[in-house]
Amino acid sequence: MTEDKRRGLDKSRTRPVTIEPGFHTMSEGSVLYRAGNTRVLCTASIEDSVPDWLKGRGKGWITAEYQMHPRSNPTRREKRDGRKGQVSGRTKEIERLIGRSLRAAVDLSLLGERSITVDCDVLEADGGTRTASVTGGFVALALAAHKLIERGSLKRSFLVDQVAAVSVGHVDGEYCLDLCYAEDSTARVDLNVVATARGEIVELQGTAEGRAVPRSDMDNMVDLGLRGIQELTKLQTTVLEAVGIDLSTLILKDD
Amino acid sequence: MTEDKRRGLDKSRTRPVTIEPGFHTMSEGSVLYRAGNTRVLCTASIEDSVPDWLKGRGKGWITAEYQMHPRSNPTRREKRDGRKGQVSGRTKEIERLIGRSLRAAVDLSLLGERSITVDCDVLEADGGTRTASVTGGFVALALAAHKLIERGSLKRSFLVDQVAAVSVGHVDGEYCLDLCYAEDSTARVDLNVVATARGEIVELQGTAEGRAVPRSDMDNMVDLGLRGIQELTKLQTTVLEAVGIDLSTLILKDD
Amino acid sequence: MTEDKRRGLDKSRTRPVTIEPGFHTMSEGSVLYRAGNTRVLCTASIEDSVPDWLKGRGKGWITAEYQMHPRSNPTRREKRDGRKGQVSGRTKEIERLIGRSLRAAVDLSLLGERSITVDCDVLEADGGTRTASVTGGFVALALAAHKLIERGSLKRSFLVDQVAAVSVGHVDGEYCLDLCYAEDSTARVDLNVVATARGEIVELQGTAEGRAVPRSDMDNMVDLGLRGIQELTKLQTTVLEAVGIDLSTLILKDD
Amino acid sequence: MTEDKRRGLDKSRTRPVTIEPGFHTMSEGSVLYRAGNTRVLCTASIEDSVPDWLKGRGKGWITAEYQMHPRSNPTRREKRDGRKGQVSGRTKEIERLIGRSLRAAVDLSLLGERSITVDCDVLEADGGTRTASVTGGFVALALAAHKLIERGSLKRSFLVDQVAAVSVGHVDGEYCLDLCYAEDSTARVDLNVVATARGEIVELQGTAEGRAVPRSDMDNMVDLGLRGIQELTKLQTTVLEAVGIDLSTLILKDD
Amino acid sequence: MTEDKRRGLDKSRTRPVTIEPGFHTMSEGSVLYRAGNTRVLCTASIEDSVPDWLKGRGKGWITAEYQMHPRSNPTRREKRDGRKGQVSGRTKEIERLIGRSLRAAVDLSLLGERSITVDCDVLEADGGTRTASVTGGFVALALAAHKLIERGSLKRSFLVDQVAAVSVGHVDGEYCLDLCYAEDSTARVDLNVVATARGEIVELQGTAEGRAVPRSDMDNMVDLGLRGIQELTKLQTTVLEAVGIDLSTLILKDD
Amino acid sequence: MTEDKRRGLDKSRTRPVTIEPGFHTMSEGSVLYRAGNTRVLCTASIEDSVPDWLKGRGKGWITAEYQMHPRSNPTRREKRDGRKGQVSGRTKEIERLIGRSLRAAVDLSLLGERSITVDCDVLEADGGTRTASVTGGFVALALAAHKLIERGSLKRSFLVDQVAAVSVGHVDGEYCLDLCYAEDSTARVDLNVVATARGEIVELQGTAEGRAVPRSDMDNMVDLGLRGIQELTKLQTTVLEAVGIDLSTLILKDD
Repeated sequence: MTEDKRRGLDKSRTRPVTIEPGFHTMSEGSVLYRAGNTRVLCTASIEDSVPDWLKGRGKGWITAEYQMHPRSNPTRREKRDGRKGQVSGRTKEIERLIGRSLRAAVDLSLLGERSITVDCDVLEADGGTRTASVTGGFVALALAAHKLIERGSLKRSFLVDQVAAVSVGHVDGEYCLDLCYAEDSTARVDLNVVATARGEIVELQGTAEGRAVPRSDMDNMVDLGLRGIQELTKLQTTVLEAVGIDLSTLILKDD
Repeated sequence: MTEDKRRGLDKSRTRPVTIEPGFHTMSEGSVLYRAGNTRVLCTASIEDSVPDWLKGRGKGWITAEYQMHPRSNPTRREKRDGRKGQVSGRTKEIERLIGRSLRAAVDLSLLGERSITVDCDVLEADGGTRTASVTGGFVALALAAHKLIERGSLKRSFLVDQVAAVSVGHVDGEYCLDLCYAEDSTARVDLNVVATARGEIVELQGTAEGRAVPRSDMDNMVDLGLRGIQELTKLQTTVLEAVGIDLSTLILKDD
Repeated sequence: MTEDKRRGLDKSRTRPVTIEPGFHTMSEGSVLYRAGNTRVLCTASIEDSVPDWLKGRGKGWITAEYQMHPRSNPTRREKRDGRKGQVSGRTKEIERLIGRSLRAAVDLSLLGERSITVDCDVLEADGGTRTASVTGGFVALALAAHKLIERGSLKRSFLVDQVAAVSVGHVDGEYCLDLCYAEDSTARVDLNVVATARGEIVELQGTAEGRAVPRSDMDNMVDLGLRGIQELTKLQTTVLEAVGIDLSTLILKDD
Repeated sequence: MTEDKRRGLDKSRTRPVTIEPGFHTMSEGSVLYRAGNTRVLCTASIEDSVPDWLKGRGKGWITAEYQMHPRSNPTRREKRDGRKGQVSGRTKEIERLIGRSLRAAVDLSLLGERSITVDCDVLEADGGTRTASVTGGFVALALAAHKLIERGSLKRSFLVDQVAAVSVGHVDGEYCLDLCYAEDSTARVDLNVVATARGEIVELQGTAEGRAVPRSDMDNMVDLGLRGIQELTKLQTTVLEAVGIDLSTLILKDD
Repeated sequence: MTEDKRRGLDKSRTRPVTIEPGFHTMSEGSVLYRAGNTRVLCTASIEDSVPDWLKGRGKGWITAEYQMHPRSNPTRREKRDGRKGQVSGRTKEIERLIGRSLRAAVDLSLLGERSITVDCDVLEADGGTRTASVTGGFVALALAAHKLIERGSLKRSFLVDQVAAVSVGHVDGEYCLDLCYAEDSTARVDLNVVATARGEIVELQGTAEGRAVPRSDMDNMVDLGLRGIQELTKLQTTVLEAVGIDLSTLILKDD
Repeated sequence: MTEDKRRGLDKSRTRPVTIEPGFHTMSEGSVLYRAGNTRVLCTASIEDSVPDWLKGRGKGWITAEYQMHPRSNPTRREKRDGRKGQVSGRTKEIERLIGRSLRAAVDLSLLGERSITVDCDVLEADGGTRTASVTGGFVALALAAHKLIERGSLKRSFLVDQVAAVSVGHVDGEYCLDLCYAEDSTARVDLNVVATARGEIVELQGTAEGRAVPRSDMDNMVDLGLRGIQELTKLQTTVLEAVGIDLSTLILKDD
């Protein structure tokens, strides 16, 4: 499939994104997230305990795990992620990013002494798996928040913001949103933006590949990323609406 | 869901089984296999090389990997399968069983110097994940065989038999086919049967839980298992037909 | 040594088996077990505690460890068993089999909160090391049971059955009991049977090497295995008698 | 020591920075880098080979390792970095950042088939150890480049840019450059900037701690970071001048 | 058993030592070595290759491995030696000592490009396992040397010396040879001596437990150790004679 | 640098030794120790707890860790010490030696329930790093003892002796003190001596490289080592005096 076909001529739009809630039935919240050819299964699992270092403080914790299916790429990896006796640096970096991003959307003191683990299993990978994990992971988290309230375990939500993430690149002299693998590997600069529905920034991770870039390029890319996040947060809202969840009431307002 | 609801009153039948071919697009063959609440993603990945110990002998190799999703159970596992620095004994035992079972269905010398890895990722687990992996894995393997021929990489198939697997138990004084988790954990005996469409045996693994059992019990359970495998191999045939693959021509006949 | 010399012309008999009790003095029960050229040191070690998951339930636990001496084969293994940072899948599979088999011979609630570990160290290997470990391990266990009673730690035995194990194969068109390595590696089918003195089955593990086999072959092999186990359980009784232990009183009768 | 004492009243300046070249004599380039109470030993080691994946392509490679001394903090760490059998996610993330940052300053094809490893050993840590590693690591790299030319191994330099790094935070309503540990742990936002002497950007890593921040905050922090990098690149130039190395001739100009 | 009973009143003599050659049949040389209650199985395994770092230099290599049986002590160890993912420091220290000691008895250039691994498996431990491994290991090595000549693989021996080892302690104000565990754990000083039949020293490892000791004590202990080694080398000679091997012709004389 | 230049003509003297106290500011005691081209950073870290096996006995513990900087040698090591998932046997052997040696200088019951870890990080290595670690480590320990008293945490010192260490070799027919790497690698015998200021012995570790040596050689080498330790303990005293610490009052006298 050519890139143009996949996304039309407009590289300033994300690839086609679909979010299928409830794909996994055992977890408290789950989505099968698709962006172009990338597919990530996100599941949110609630446990009634917190890590040792947090015990007795009345607060909860949210963390993430990330794994590539061994055949998520055009060729199978020699070793399953994690089976070499240790998780790769890339995997850990991504897990930390997902965890931080999701924690920025919640008030942990409202969660009580509970942990939520968001597992992001990349079934197929064509670029943007970490941003897909954040955007899909947020929907799984919202579904879990809804379930806690529905079950009566919580009186009110612990969500305080809505987050999504997207990648931006500078490819062949053009700014490009939501890079597929082929675009990503030829980009001069690669930026991941995590932000809220209101356009506030949670994370910026920009890397010049090879040579440094002018600041103005970075600024333009942040602009494009924030526009993409607008699209994605709208989609999150719509998908949750379709299963009867009103995100505007699930997210607490500051007074 | 109660057990009776799930399978009706007849415990001598398998739970409802569905096989969805082509769920995973990057691999050469894949199915999403469901038996009751158990769901396993099986993907077959072809590589044009063999392990070192087999090099230069003109033969191929087929192996399997198995992993439980961390939330495949009602509660999340503390650690992802394999991340403790080593794979559990149970996982290795299952991987060896799947690999042996699938190799019994092929003539490795017809595969050429190629490896096929069948990855069995258990998304949700309610008993019978190893037998699901064998039965689903065979369909993924057949899809991969078809693709090799379709691509022109192979002139004729390397399949020589059709295999499937099922569990049998002795639960509350009754023989029971295709145990769900609740049945499995109360069974007096637990038997896994791997066999061909013609009823020939590939593997028997029978374990008395707690106390030894009369030989006649084992014999009756083997009978029941072979009947279940009849059902499952018919379903494999039907599912492949639905995507235009005639298993009877894909399996080589002895002359 | 040719195979025929080793066992005479009758392949339906086990190889010469000797059991030397008390070879190891520090453990509560030990035997040096020999079957043909295979030699396994089995020691039973009692501890006055149980694994965490069993604490406070008034029951005991029996487990096994298995290790090949690095020079148990005609050439030395590159690495000591277990030193690669993890135990091989084969080792774990065998340890689980030995543990399950021995537990089938005992009533754990009569053992009290004690653990018995049966270490099976294969000094020399010529096939059948796992079945040797079960048959020898049972004698070590019986010696340990006797010692607990002798010491006054237990009023009565925790043994409820007598177990032994043997391998059966289909080699060159003939059924063959207690395979040596050369026989095992050419067998069309390989079956391990664990059973009691009364012929009740504890484990069946049958594997067709390469191609599936008719059910009647499996049935005939189970028959032969059970006959072999008769021989072996008689030898266990004799060996224990020779050191003054009457197995018939050490094994509890059902009322 | 209070923070104000340490840096005076002006939080928009870096802490006192000193760079001691040649502290380590065996390596081809080394500095002992100090920023406030943070001290990092950076050594550059040249090897006449490249990793396997780069062999035969006439290019070189630059990589970094990072380790905290077990007593680099007010209390000793329980375990030496890396001795737990695996390196922490944080360590790997930092090593990747240092490596990418230094590679942005070089033309690897001019290095020939050589590897340079920059080891960053944090002797004492009071915030900013990763940015210290980049800024100090660049000087070690320049010393190694000089040595290669001096030895006659290279005709001309492989440096194409001058890089440095600094952290910026938003602490108590004030933007603050080069955070010490106490500042870092109370910052609302934490940004690491890696940039060249000309103000072009190599890396941006901005993380809102807890809650998202307005984009304008990020922009102001990038401004402050780039000013700090101006200071630091001037210091790098001065320090190298003092040992007779003219950085302006060591860095290749684009034509 | 009290200590006095075990060795009589004379603490300046070794405990009763027996060496049973040929206990293990697969290896090229083996002994079951007993000193008091300590029992070590030593096997020598020959391979026709050397480690990579020695290839192409026409020399051989001799190395040792050491393992405690999990029940070699009065209570079973929690974990098998080496199964924790790494071998203990103590084990490695002992393996290096055994290897160095045995290499001092050979001319590696006469061995050709062969490796001999001496495995020392401690079946039962009551002090002195490392010195038992050296003394027993030498006999296993001599048996392997004999076998290489007998087979015609070597024209003449590679042995150039005869080595043995013994421990010495200062216990309750008395010098004491060949310490059992109880003596060792109360000794003020603990010395291991490895030496040749002619009284030349290969290794001295003396450790004051707790507080330093006068030099004269060390000197006296070395004297006692050398006397013990005289006894042990005589026993080695006798044991080999009994199986028809004349050590005086197997050890090459300097001209 | 030639060896003669480095130490003059007198091989019976140590190489030039300098001890720089307080190089590392966070630890309770530290020195940068230099002997010839060898440089070791020794830091003593106090913790108010002891290992589990020592709890509740009112005693303290002293232990050591040792690490080679990856570029402490003329070429960089492929892997950082310890990062291979396990620490090398050599490293563990050295850590145990340093720990035992330092514990010989203290009365652990006077330390209270505290642990002191002495980290010995070898920045540059030219032979004698383990003896440098002992000699430098003792000064770091004395500084930590002084700090505990100064802070009022202890009423009186826990030091009962003064220890230092040195290597001795037999090189080219000459006895040689404090071997550099080149000397060490050609030495016929290599002896490490750890002793007190009064010449009492803590450790002797003598190894003949290749062939056994006459006892008289060992005796002469011990003599030379004890003379070297006299020099080194005087230097320790002087260095501590220079920072206002009187070692004679810090070391408790026996009554």
